[in-house]
Amino acid sequence: MKILITGGAGFIGSRLARALLDRGSLAGHPIDRLVLADQVAPRAELAADGRVETRVGVLAAQCEALAADGFDGVFHLASAVSGECEADFDLGLRSNLDTTRALLDALRGTARAGRPPARLVFSSSVAVFGPDPSKPLPEQVGDDTLPAPKTSYGTHKLMCEHLIADYSRKGFIDGRSARLMTVTVRPGRPNGAASSFFSGIVREPLAGVESICPVGPEVSHPLTSAARTVEGLIAVYEASIEALGGRLALNLPAVNATVAQMLDALEAVAGKAVRDRVRFVRDETIAGIVANWPRGATAARAARLGLRADADFQTIIRRYIDDCRAAGDDAALKGLA
Amino acid sequence: MKILITGGAGFIGSRLARALLDRGSLAGHPIDRLVLADQVAPRAELAADGRVETRVGVLAAQCEALAADGFDGVFHLASAVSGECEADFDLGLRSNLDTTRALLDALRGTARAGRPPARLVFSSSVAVFGPDPSKPLPEQVGDDTLPAPKTSYGTHKLMCEHLIADYSRKGFIDGRSARLMTVTVRPGRPNGAASSFFSGIVREPLAGVESICPVGPEVSHPLTSAARTVEGLIAVYEASIEALGGRLALNLPAVNATVAQMLDALEAVAGKAVRDRVRFVRDETIAGIVANWPRGATAARAARLGLRADADFQTIIRRYIDDCRAAGDDAALKGLA
Repeated sequence: MKILITGGAGFIGSRLARALLDRGSLAGHPIDRLVLADQVAPRAELAADGRVETRVGVLAAQCEALAADGFDGVFHLASAVSGECEADFDLGLRSNLDTTRALLDALRGTARAGRPPARLVFSSSVAVFGPDPSKPLPEQVGDDTLPAPKTSYGTHKLMCEHLIADYSRKGFIDGRSARLMTVTVRPGRPNGAASSFFSGIVREPLAGVESICPVGPEVSHPLTSAARTVEGLIAVYEASIEALGGRLALNLPAVNATVAQMLDALEAVAGKAVRDRVRFVRDETIAGIVANWPRGATAARAARLGLRADADFQTIIRRYIDDCRAAGDDAALKGLA
Repeated sequence: MKILITGGAGFIGSRLARALLDRGSLAGHPIDRLVLADQVAPRAELAADGRVETRVGVLAAQCEALAADGFDGVFHLASAVSGECEADFDLGLRSNLDTTRALLDALRGTARAGRPPARLVFSSSVAVFGPDPSKPLPEQVGDDTLPAPKTSYGTHKLMCEHLIADYSRKGFIDGRSARLMTVTVRPGRPNGAASSFFSGIVREPLAGVESICPVGPEVSHPLTSAARTVEGLIAVYEASIEALGGRLALNLPAVNATVAQMLDALEAVAGKAVRDRVRFVRDETIAGIVANWPRGATAARAARLGLRADADFQTIIRRYIDDCRAAGDDAALKGLA
């Protein structure tokens, strides 16, 4: 079978590609071809695999060509991120809404050609949820919490969820939307996103660098590892619609943790000296944005697929440390005693 | 002030135009100019008013020109209807999603020009609600019931609600979305829409014509008169965002009635001979579609604006009879003794 990952060179896309290549099959069929589409080239180790084909460029411009491929399955991860969408409203709509629609129309050709509709997993986001004057957020958002996005990014994700459900209802694709939780620990540099500190307060101290936490220790958030996220995307792909409980988007599992609990976990895993590299310096702008985010999430439908959150935040930290060691990234861990 | 009604020649648009011209003002400001945009010309009596300007043509093609108008307020009613969207998927997306976005971008120029953002009321629909395997419909859908559209029409309405909320959050427009209930009694001929019979089983018998009811007498639905709908649109325009309870769409009030109750009301208002012109001949296709529709609705936020449903279905029928009499439409009432 032939699989496409949009955003295939990204943080989650790369890990998903690695997982699919290691499995070798998906929903019982061997993966003959794995196309990684992204604005940048994928990691060399992925590109070196004989099954991998790379398509570098803006996704919107690639969709017409992708239509000719006749994909059996698609993981649609490519997206302009929250900060980009807030900074450039039109770019956000083009990158997230228009590009998704162009992709769906490209895939629709498969069903038109008389073959089974392409199966598609869409990476939606916990960002579809927000507080509203008519409906405050519950302490934990569930699969059936009323979405009320407070960012353009969350708005686009929600609109695409429903567009995908409608393309699916018409038989043009076989689409499913999974809402990703905040993935930690993201490697690399702080990226200016309001959520950046959720990774930063672990990543920087482990690298021996001081980190500023811009919100109070009482702030709570639904967190997940990259590994659990990839596992969730694959499970949602492989599940029947009956097992999924329909076409409405479902939450992926999360560890709901406060900043204080995150730092306790960091101390337990890496010691007090590492924890002490985190300083609290309140940033009213970031704190204001984060105050509109869910403090936690449940994932009842994902649980019925057998999906589980990481055991706790210590586990998430240990996964990150293991990943750095496996990658031979000594610099990332030079703060460890 | 300068007001635009898209769909200004339609069933609700015409009545809204009449109501605005009769009031002469909106939100405390005199209406100097009322632009009626539609694919067909508005009623002669509306066009004859010195304040009215008509724009005939496809709305998408008009948006660029509309941008130059600098509207203070807009009622966006134009839409491809449910049946059209199911028959032509791409036309539905163009007519409902793309055209709404083009209109929003046209209005955005007003805010860019340094004037207050144009206020916009969007006519969403009870069609955003549907049953889902993960979430059955409650007996009555409320403002905060999780939408799960089961038609492309309902999908587009829901997507536009969120697009409008996001344009509003950015300060580009001042948008509000009101979900219209099924308006009865629509005058004219049966139109092939699955909901057509909700009007037909009253309209045809009153005109002395037999009517077929394609669903059982136990089927229940949220119904409203055109007058209450127009009243609701105006109230949603005039309300502050605080009074509205935020930017999320709100339900307009409805009379929740079964087909049996509708026919009892018809008999009470017009006599047994009129009621007896309705015959039950089940149509499995229509019954299947209607089974996915809400059986009733509540409207808590609208109630806080002082909006009320019609007193009962008899009142809705009497309004229709009064409208026919006022229009001198004897043929519509020739079934009355």
